[in-house]
Amino acid sequence: MVAEHVHPASVAAAPVVVASNRGPVSYRRREDGSLVAGRGGGGLVSGLSSIRREGDGGSEGEGGAAVWVCAALGEGDREAARAAGRRLSTDDTGGHHVRMLDIPPDTFAAAYNGIANSVLWFVHHMLYQTPLEPVFDQHFRAQWAAYEEYDTAFADAIAEEAAQGAAVLVQDYHLALVPGLLRARRPDLRIGHFSHTPWAPPDYFRMLPDDVAGQLLRGVLGGDRAGFLTLRWAEAFAACCADVLGAEVVRDGEGRAAEVRFEGRTTRLGVHGLGADADFLRERAHRADVEERMAALRAQIGGPDRKTIVRVDRTELSKNIVRGLYAYRRLLEEHPQWRGRVVHVAFAYPSRQDLAVYRDYTAEVERVAREINAEFGTEGWEPVALHVKDDFARSLAAYRLADVALVNPIRDGMNLVAKEVPVVSDHGCVLVLSREAGAAAELGDEAITVNPYDVEATARALHLALLMDPGERAERTKRLAAAATALPPARWFTDQLRAL
Amino acid sequence: MVAEHVHPASVAAAPVVVASNRGPVSYRRREDGSLVAGRGGGGLVSGLSSIRREGDGGSEGEGGAAVWVCAALGEGDREAARAAGRRLSTDDTGGHHVRMLDIPPDTFAAAYNGIANSVLWFVHHMLYQTPLEPVFDQHFRAQWAAYEEYDTAFADAIAEEAAQGAAVLVQDYHLALVPGLLRARRPDLRIGHFSHTPWAPPDYFRMLPDDVAGQLLRGVLGGDRAGFLTLRWAEAFAACCADVLGAEVVRDGEGRAAEVRFEGRTTRLGVHGLGADADFLRERAHRADVEERMAALRAQIGGPDRKTIVRVDRTELSKNIVRGLYAYRRLLEEHPQWRGRVVHVAFAYPSRQDLAVYRDYTAEVERVAREINAEFGTEGWEPVALHVKDDFARSLAAYRLADVALVNPIRDGMNLVAKEVPVVSDHGCVLVLSREAGAAAELGDEAITVNPYDVEATARALHLALLMDPGERAERTKRLAAAATALPPARWFTDQLRAL
Repeated sequence: MVAEHVHPASVAAAPVVVASNRGPVSYRRREDGSLVAGRGGGGLVSGLSSIRREGDGGSEGEGGAAVWVCAALGEGDREAARAAGRRLSTDDTGGHHVRMLDIPPDTFAAAYNGIANSVLWFVHHMLYQTPLEPVFDQHFRAQWAAYEEYDTAFADAIAEEAAQGAAVLVQDYHLALVPGLLRARRPDLRIGHFSHTPWAPPDYFRMLPDDVAGQLLRGVLGGDRAGFLTLRWAEAFAACCADVLGAEVVRDGEGRAAEVRFEGRTTRLGVHGLGADADFLRERAHRADVEERMAALRAQIGGPDRKTIVRVDRTELSKNIVRGLYAYRRLLEEHPQWRGRVVHVAFAYPSRQDLAVYRDYTAEVERVAREINAEFGTEGWEPVALHVKDDFARSLAAYRLADVALVNPIRDGMNLVAKEVPVVSDHGCVLVLSREAGAAAELGDEAITVNPYDVEATARALHLALLMDPGERAERTKRLAAAATALPPARWFTDQLRAL
Repeated sequence: MVAEHVHPASVAAAPVVVASNRGPVSYRRREDGSLVAGRGGGGLVSGLSSIRREGDGGSEGEGGAAVWVCAALGEGDREAARAAGRRLSTDDTGGHHVRMLDIPPDTFAAAYNGIANSVLWFVHHMLYQTPLEPVFDQHFRAQWAAYEEYDTAFADAIAEEAAQGAAVLVQDYHLALVPGLLRARRPDLRIGHFSHTPWAPPDYFRMLPDDVAGQLLRGVLGGDRAGFLTLRWAEAFAACCADVLGAEVVRDGEGRAAEVRFEGRTTRLGVHGLGADADFLRERAHRADVEERMAALRAQIGGPDRKTIVRVDRTELSKNIVRGLYAYRRLLEEHPQWRGRVVHVAFAYPSRQDLAVYRDYTAEVERVAREINAEFGTEGWEPVALHVKDDFARSLAAYRLADVALVNPIRDGMNLVAKEVPVVSDHGCVLVLSREAGAAAELGDEAITVNPYDVEATARALHLALLMDPGERAERTKRLAAAATALPPARWFTDQLRAL
């Protein structure tokens, strides 16, 4: 099959291919009918930029540069993808070579919303109300066929783009089948998969239909490497391979899962704890718009001696915003000295409001916040300042002035908020961190860790956090920032590439 | 402390003590005001009777017989317990020595409903809607204190009843703290604990507040032996001990968890797969009332050639009745040849209707059954025959005439229905069995096993079950009955006693 991949002279094959559902650019149609490109950030963009700077991608147009394969997400993207031919204009992408796949909208919706975000996300985060969900019926089967089709489109495109022996970095649960599909098409490639989510333990992963569970694991095992954000998720993946496939798990000298052997192939496991991008954050957090937001927030909080407990999340079922509010209410009940002296600044940015369960969750967040304000609020003090409109500058403003950051997800691949706050904090911030977040593996020693289901313990942690003396707080914040930036995005990316 | 336990001359200390929430007898008040005792069955009653027959309990009144410590469950029990003094009259108990504890009603309710059935049951069966439940707050803490009090009452009573060096068999998740509490009071005793439920995997068990999770594990580890219905639950328990306590798990030659070592003590793990009581069932299933129910069921089913898919469950969230109905609907959709030729006889006996989530579940079962009958039913054929009124004789009648038994729990310690049906089946019955039931470990080879979340696969399994030829069906039923009765209740009990 390899021999069939003859690259047209005008498009050079790439020595590095990155594949992810969301690409580094998105298009929307302006009122005048023209398409405008917006560029995103994140670890992959930094990583690709850095290999371009280092020249690992070879000189462009000859040996070929790195190529990013992604899906068209909306109508603007689709039009741009169709207009562009095989690759988007590098004028739109910040110089990256991007191939955007125009997957049929129904297929994309079924694969992305139906499978990736409603099944795989729920399984890996253990979010189901199990007595009634999930139900794997004929509708699921239709969606699963779409997911296979969507992953196959990626595998086909990568097979076409990748140079002989190229390195391919496949991202996340949307593309779990791609390594296996690609291996069948191009056995010459070095293929890595990286999971940005947690991985479910076997007793939860087994919920998936047997053939689907098997396909997902075989898909990832089609790669030479499977990367995870923390050892815990790598171990869970290995346990699933052993439980579902009967694969052999090889451990290193410290007893950690290091390789999975299955059907004559070996897939190495790797842990790459994506860190915060300190340079970007520090620069961005000191621009004028952030200063403005700080002033507005200070005005909303009131009195200069008031402390702030900040949280910033998408309103995602795993983020545990409701229990966070319960814990705050409990703090005010148990420790009346904080009444009037603290404000819980909660940014809960709506997410997936097309799904009833997310709308209900958002409504519950708002209800509990109102309840607390009604119960404890006074003329000059609103205990909870809830904001639901996404505003990155305001998030950074809250990071800078927070006395306490509450990051209490019930399960989280990593959680970058926990890593970003210490980096930009103005005068030190105590991190109250769920031990079920991947970040706890790196930050747990300097944070106050909590069991996210334990509202009483979380309330106690908030109390201790508010009481922490400024010296210790500043010291801890410094150490948190160091740990949080140990593996900046660009290195996170190039480490994986080198390991492959 | 041991020396303090001087037994009054009138009450002999017991060489064997059994402790369980529910005892072998319950009392209700008659209209004339007098109390009447009703006796129960089950593995413990059979077991105790058999050791009395074997004389292991020593001669009564001298060396002392086995004593059963249980809780008063209702008002009738409480009155009887108060009137009886230390032990109930053996006239009421079928000759057993029973000490019934009159635990304050509020304490009992908080411990039994609040902790045992709403927290521990949900954790071990993985039933929570995790984004919003559980919430471990101050109400939980009050209930937990009640659970400690309730378990302490048991430990105190057992310490008082047990002879020097006696064997104590503590039953189930209601009494998880008892082995540890008892060990502190009476280090001379040989103590075993037996779990009749599944055990949660570490990622789910960790939801419990840390101190509570630790107390529960230390409680069970206070015993010399911890027994489980199947190896899978023993492994999960061992994994929790390692994860939460950092305990050492010692494995046998086949790599199975055999012991847990913690703080200088060793607790052996044992697997005792409680079987069906064949003698009792076969006799009971041929009494006149069962014959009557069979005639009534046959009349309801209609035509003599109609096949029956039978299920018998409490309407418990883990039993998966709703997905069972979905699978049946799918069978009728996909294989129209069964329309008019099969009836799904579903007995769903209300359970815990004091809880909204159980009432909702019951309503959902009824709604889906009605929907199927409305969609497919015809003049002479009602596709689903749903019965919600508990009737043991009718259950046995259904067991006898079933062509297919559907036992598809999402998680189940063992599931005795799966074991009882083959024992009493008149002309052979195909068992469609969830692999998440403990029974699957013993019956899986002869049953058609299914993933209980997979409605499509369950529908296929029902289709195959209906098609199985009578010869194979009869052969499989015979082998299922043999496997199901391999460890009858009396031996299940004495095996544990001997192992201790």
